Amino acid sequence: MKKPNKRKIINDPVFGFINIPSEFLYDLIQHPYFQRLHRIKQLGLSSFVYPGAQHTRMQHSLGAMHLMGEAITQLQQQGHAISPAEAEAVRACILLHDVGHGPFSHALEHSLVNDISHEEISLILMQKLNEVFEGKLDISIEIFTANYPKKYLHQLVSGQLDMDRLDYLSRDSFFSGVSEGIIGAARIIKMLNLHNDELVVDIKGIYSIEKFLVARRLMYWQVYLHKTSVAAERMLVNILKRAKELKLRGDDLFASPALHYFLYNRIDKNSFLKSDEALQNFVMLDDSDLVCAIKVWGSHSDIVLSTLCRDFTNRRLFKVEINPNLVDKAVYSKDLKQYATYFGISEEEATYFLGDEIVTTDTYSPDDDSIKILLKNDNVKDITDVSDMLNIQVLTKKVEKHFYCYYKI
Amino acid sequence: MKKPNKRKIINDPVFGFINIPSEFLYDLIQHPYFQRLHRIKQLGLSSFVYPGAQHTRMQHSLGAMHLMGEAITQLQQQGHAISPAEAEAVRACILLHDVGHGPFSHALEHSLVNDISHEEISLILMQKLNEVFEGKLDISIEIFTANYPKKYLHQLVSGQLDMDRLDYLSRDSFFSGVSEGIIGAARIIKMLNLHNDELVVDIKGIYSIEKFLVARRLMYWQVYLHKTSVAAERMLVNILKRAKELKLRGDDLFASPALHYFLYNRIDKNSFLKSDEALQNFVMLDDSDLVCAIKVWGSHSDIVLSTLCRDFTNRRLFKVEINPNLVDKAVYSKDLKQYATYFGISEEEATYFLGDEIVTTDTYSPDDDSIKILLKNDNVKDITDVSDMLNIQVLTKKVEKHFYCYYKI
Amino acid sequence: MKKPNKRKIINDPVFGFINIPSEFLYDLIQHPYFQRLHRIKQLGLSSFVYPGAQHTRMQHSLGAMHLMGEAITQLQQQGHAISPAEAEAVRACILLHDVGHGPFSHALEHSLVNDISHEEISLILMQKLNEVFEGKLDISIEIFTANYPKKYLHQLVSGQLDMDRLDYLSRDSFFSGVSEGIIGAARIIKMLNLHNDELVVDIKGIYSIEKFLVARRLMYWQVYLHKTSVAAERMLVNILKRAKELKLRGDDLFASPALHYFLYNRIDKNSFLKSDEALQNFVMLDDSDLVCAIKVWGSHSDIVLSTLCRDFTNRRLFKVEINPNLVDKAVYSKDLKQYATYFGISEEEATYFLGDEIVTTDTYSPDDDSIKILLKNDNVKDITDVSDMLNIQVLTKKVEKHFYCYYKI
Amino acid sequence: MKKPNKRKIINDPVFGFINIPSEFLYDLIQHPYFQRLHRIKQLGLSSFVYPGAQHTRMQHSLGAMHLMGEAITQLQQQGHAISPAEAEAVRACILLHDVGHGPFSHALEHSLVNDISHEEISLILMQKLNEVFEGKLDISIEIFTANYPKKYLHQLVSGQLDMDRLDYLSRDSFFSGVSEGIIGAARIIKMLNLHNDELVVDIKGIYSIEKFLVARRLMYWQVYLHKTSVAAERMLVNILKRAKELKLRGDDLFASPALHYFLYNRIDKNSFLKSDEALQNFVMLDDSDLVCAIKVWGSHSDIVLSTLCRDFTNRRLFKVEINPNLVDKAVYSKDLKQYATYFGISEEEATYFLGDEIVTTDTYSPDDDSIKILLKNDNVKDITDVSDMLNIQVLTKKVEKHFYCYYKI
Repeated sequence: MKKPNKRKIINDPVFGFINIPSEFLYDLIQHPYFQRLHRIKQLGLSSFVYPGAQHTRMQHSLGAMHLMGEAITQLQQQGHAISPAEAEAVRACILLHDVGHGPFSHALEHSLVNDISHEEISLILMQKLNEVFEGKLDISIEIFTANYPKKYLHQLVSGQLDMDRLDYLSRDSFFSGVSEGIIGAARIIKMLNLHNDELVVDIKGIYSIEKFLVARRLMYWQVYLHKTSVAAERMLVNILKRAKELKLRGDDLFASPALHYFLYNRIDKNSFLKSDEALQNFVMLDDSDLVCAIKVWGSHSDIVLSTLCRDFTNRRLFKVEINPNLVDKAVYSKDLKQYATYFGISEEEATYFLGDEIVTTDTYSPDDDSIKILLKNDNVKDITDVSDMLNIQVLTKKVEKHFYCYYKI
Repeated sequence: MKKPNKRKIINDPVFGFINIPSEFLYDLIQHPYFQRLHRIKQLGLSSFVYPGAQHTRMQHSLGAMHLMGEAITQLQQQGHAISPAEAEAVRACILLHDVGHGPFSHALEHSLVNDISHEEISLILMQKLNEVFEGKLDISIEIFTANYPKKYLHQLVSGQLDMDRLDYLSRDSFFSGVSEGIIGAARIIKMLNLHNDELVVDIKGIYSIEKFLVARRLMYWQVYLHKTSVAAERMLVNILKRAKELKLRGDDLFASPALHYFLYNRIDKNSFLKSDEALQNFVMLDDSDLVCAIKVWGSHSDIVLSTLCRDFTNRRLFKVEINPNLVDKAVYSKDLKQYATYFGISEEEATYFLGDEIVTTDTYSPDDDSIKILLKNDNVKDITDVSDMLNIQVLTKKVEKHFYCYYKI
Repeated sequence: MKKPNKRKIINDPVFGFINIPSEFLYDLIQHPYFQRLHRIKQLGLSSFVYPGAQHTRMQHSLGAMHLMGEAITQLQQQGHAISPAEAEAVRACILLHDVGHGPFSHALEHSLVNDISHEEISLILMQKLNEVFEGKLDISIEIFTANYPKKYLHQLVSGQLDMDRLDYLSRDSFFSGVSEGIIGAARIIKMLNLHNDELVVDIKGIYSIEKFLVARRLMYWQVYLHKTSVAAERMLVNILKRAKELKLRGDDLFASPALHYFLYNRIDKNSFLKSDEALQNFVMLDDSDLVCAIKVWGSHSDIVLSTLCRDFTNRRLFKVEINPNLVDKAVYSKDLKQYATYFGISEEEATYFLGDEIVTTDTYSPDDDSIKILLKNDNVKDITDVSDMLNIQVLTKKVEKHFYCYYKI
Repeated sequence: MKKPNKRKIINDPVFGFINIPSEFLYDLIQHPYFQRLHRIKQLGLSSFVYPGAQHTRMQHSLGAMHLMGEAITQLQQQGHAISPAEAEAVRACILLHDVGHGPFSHALEHSLVNDISHEEISLILMQKLNEVFEGKLDISIEIFTANYPKKYLHQLVSGQLDMDRLDYLSRDSFFSGVSEGIIGAARIIKMLNLHNDELVVDIKGIYSIEKFLVARRLMYWQVYLHKTSVAAERMLVNILKRAKELKLRGDDLFASPALHYFLYNRIDKNSFLKSDEALQNFVMLDDSDLVCAIKVWGSHSDIVLSTLCRDFTNRRLFKVEINPNLVDKAVYSKDLKQYATYFGISEEEATYFLGDEIVTTDTYSPDDDSIKILLKNDNVKDITDVSDMLNIQVLTKKVEKHFYCYYKI
């Protein structure tokens, strides 16, 4: 009797049980690069608004791998050949697709690192892991970079209906308690098929797709772009900018070695490419470095830094005013002056206490990667041509709002 | 120590526990008119498609009463005065709003009764109960007929966001297993408010409303108008028409006394008004009369009736072809001829084996009763003017489809 | 591209989606014998207490088939060979294990049929179906009758941890809204293994097993043996006894042909064996025959029958007194006399208005079929020897209660 | 129209919505002492086993406050007078009952602080807050310390069926994905009543109580005392011991100021009482201080510290062997020697690589605070005298196990 490897089943509140279907995938999960995702929250600052949203990027990656398994089974049942090697590769690919995320990624990409996206760092880390695992990630990397012949495998990782989105919408709505974000991932997957090597959705599934697009839209405005999260993010960006400034002018600032590295150096894509140093520091960085440092900076002698940090730590966040356009220059100037007087700082320093965030989103962007519907006659049409509800003008309309964030005296 | 009346809590799979908050409401629930709803499925023939959809009109009515309690609390918390008498009246009203439903109501209203809707029968039954309970339903009836001064109480019973819809969408999606129909009833209720005596939704709730409208649309096409249910309904209507025909020409036909009454007489609104006989028979009718009779008729000597009944009982339902227009006359004639030959019947008799159903729905109809959004500046606008997704042309577009249902030889 | 058979996925509120994995299983489901289960409620009279408990024996059978699939996968993953033919056979077996249930089975077996259990009727029906399907059920029948070499396949159908129980406990608690009956079927199945051809549970699963036994016990007292259900059942048995009596003495009584057959004849095991007549009538019987007839009998001239039937229909049920022993003879006699006077009937007729039900259950009975635990050292022990909570004396103690049911004047 | 304070509703994945029913409770929640709980995981190291278990002590405290509201309503509906001031006080009390928890509390109480429990720190913090809020917590503190006349209010905060347990069992099972831990908190609360000023449970609820005790037991062995968590905790305790040792001998060690304080000083109850310094540092400590420091220490020159820290961070945890008794001395000595040789360290230093944990629990301890059942005759008995399943010997049996944790070379 073969003893099963007990650790290969993971309890997941969203999907029940997640099976880790191979030794190699298990080894990837055990690698420190992946384990780091355990220390990075999926939704960053959203837990200020939704205290349940504590779930990590590790949980999301495991969930996406689980859904990938279901999608593979579905496509195989529809008669499409996917080899065991391809199945494992596309699973490994989705497992690692977020491995390049830093802590509070969105804020980080505007402060600690420059001109490099988390996708690019994911790719660099996948290449490193490919060396460690002696080429076992070759196909995964081809899929990730859209160079693998079966185009739909890339679409399953990154596209309008990829397993990334299906998991994160399910998971983020589950943990935030915004139950209306639930999207019926299981049903959508059961409607997937292929046509000319591209992912398509059976016509029976159009109402589920409509619902998916609306749920996604709801999650954007209700969770991802919630004004309180946006305010917290503005504070975090300002905090890091100020810390960097103080560090550069020689102030002593509590920081873990990895955080110190990113505060003290200007790190961009080139830094990652030319030596291992940036990467070695990057993989040592997680939420705890920032949360802990910001808490300590709350006692710093610089009134700008300490005020922002104390307030951030204790959830006294910037107020937000939502406007269709940029905040009025007069209002902005008046506020700046007020802060300068109030704190006894220069107007330039006062800029740390406010910010105008442009928030923009569309519901569906066919330029990017469209959702194709498979009709009964085996033709394929774009969802916007088939749905009698979703017309292209409405869906693709970019909605832009200005969130004017400011310190409440 | 006051002993609580134990029976006043009902377990409900959808909402957990439902409290019956007064003796009077408890007495209404115990009345045979209401108990009859225990024997009538909420979704009629949908259980042919979704075997879980066995829930009854009684469960729905109790659930709607539960949500009404939450809506009352919400409005009171917003500072609007609702007296205990009004609170009980609007609860009684929603409890009884469906008491006039017959078995398989939709089919019934096209065969056993004529020119009278279930709402009208509900009103007649509420008036009867008002006699029994000596005027205690006066306010409920005023609310039901939209004659009560506080207009919004009627809107809570019958309107775009009434507790009827909030319950049935939640409940029907729950029991059918079409989890995408879930609508976040709790959140919508928490967004309700009043403005000029009308129900409005706080601007924060617009994404929930968008989701509600899309979920409702999904439930229509995926459940309520599922082609297999439509086919089953066409069979049921044809069965009852044929049975009536045979009964009128003197054939002996197994039927409970109440069913016999409706088969043998032409019952319309006038019948209900001029004597108690129609009503007395109506309240004795439920799903079991039809299910049992149709099963027995499967052995009747009339080949039209027995074929349809055997197939209906054993779930061998008509096939369905969905077309944008009426089925082609030539196809229809060819099919008729084929059935006539196959069964050895006249072409007129052959019409029982097919039918073209016009199925139509819109997502939102502001003529009917619109959804008003309360803006931050205390102005009120229609949802279609506020939502940047839902434009009026799209939402109010009536979608019409033809379901050509026919016997499969 | 192979078109999938769309109807092979069934929505299930409990398990999400149920796949019908083969054409043969699909054909069995479509057979009228199985479709009849669509018209028989799983919990019979429990919906008087738990209005959500409307689910049918068809849903339960499909759910049990679904769990069987998961159990097969689990055992195969543990390295045990189960052939495709065996896998289909054990699925067919569990699908049909309840096909011999009549309406309100428990009451029926004490009134309309005699000395034959629903299991015996299931077997007869499986044999009939085996003729129709030309021997395709040979293995299923061997498994059902415990004659198949691999003993554990029978245990999966009928044993302490069979898929029947795992489904019905999950399903009954789900639909009744008694959420504490939930048992973690998925986890229990993931702990299953084999040892000497017998089903065993991995030691890691003992807490789940303890929980399963306690949940089962809770379901017994809270749902299956709820005093109100017991009272309703006593009424139903008395109604059918009285109806049979009246029928035999020549009274005219509304009944469908099938119900008429069982009222007019004394049907026992022999009746089923000697001719097809009993079976042909049995498969025409479902809940609707009884519900409809009892409703009609509410207007019968016999005061005993009509009183019981009106009250049963309108949910005015017998009161219940729970005693450790048989009700006191003096109380019983006094009550009888009172009813005789009240209704103007004989004391013998008055016996229809009361009854003393012995209700008994144990939590676990190792005589029957024990739960074996697989230890780390590959030894096997009974759950009562391993659990430090469940000791054998406590668990196997038969609890007996007397429910004295009586008409409330 | 009164504008509601929008922030007074919190989304909660477990209970849906949590209302904050008063300004004072809102102010408590906003205080930095309470906000700190946002940065402390409820289950500490359990997320190594159950990656979903990321929920915080803040969520738990809010959930317990929510259940307290339901318990108050229930007792009031049973006819017991609870004043608005008492209702707010008992809510504030449960809200703050865990405010004295440190990061990874269990480990902490064996390393960073000495001879002071988190309950004692909670009390000190409540007293501090009482100064800030000018006596508004007077009653809460009396309830917390069991000095308030209505004894049952303390029982609702701390007792066999307190809102603390009802929330944490619900919440921990929800987030860990161990769905069998679900306990039906709503139903238990609906069964609560009072008798002689003590909390009692209606006899109807005994099966729910049995289930609650079994679920609690299951959560202990499956989650709280899971061997992998115990191993991680042993590592953490050893890491902190070693860090303290190195610090004391003068090694430089990365640490936030607050962590530095607890590493460098011996802090006990007296330290908290004699000055504010300990408390000021304590409230600056959360999970991030430890997670971040341990990660950094992974590069420390001390091989003991760096090995343990790297392995802890990357989830390469001690192996565990479960024994009924203390591990054999010979085994222990052999292992010690092996580690000394392997790492080139002294045998004393080698003790950091192993440990024998005594793990003990009972299911129910009536000495502590018993569960009283209210019988129909208004008598009260202990659950163990009423349940025919739970006998006192079984339930109160202390189960003791030895978890031998050791480094895997």
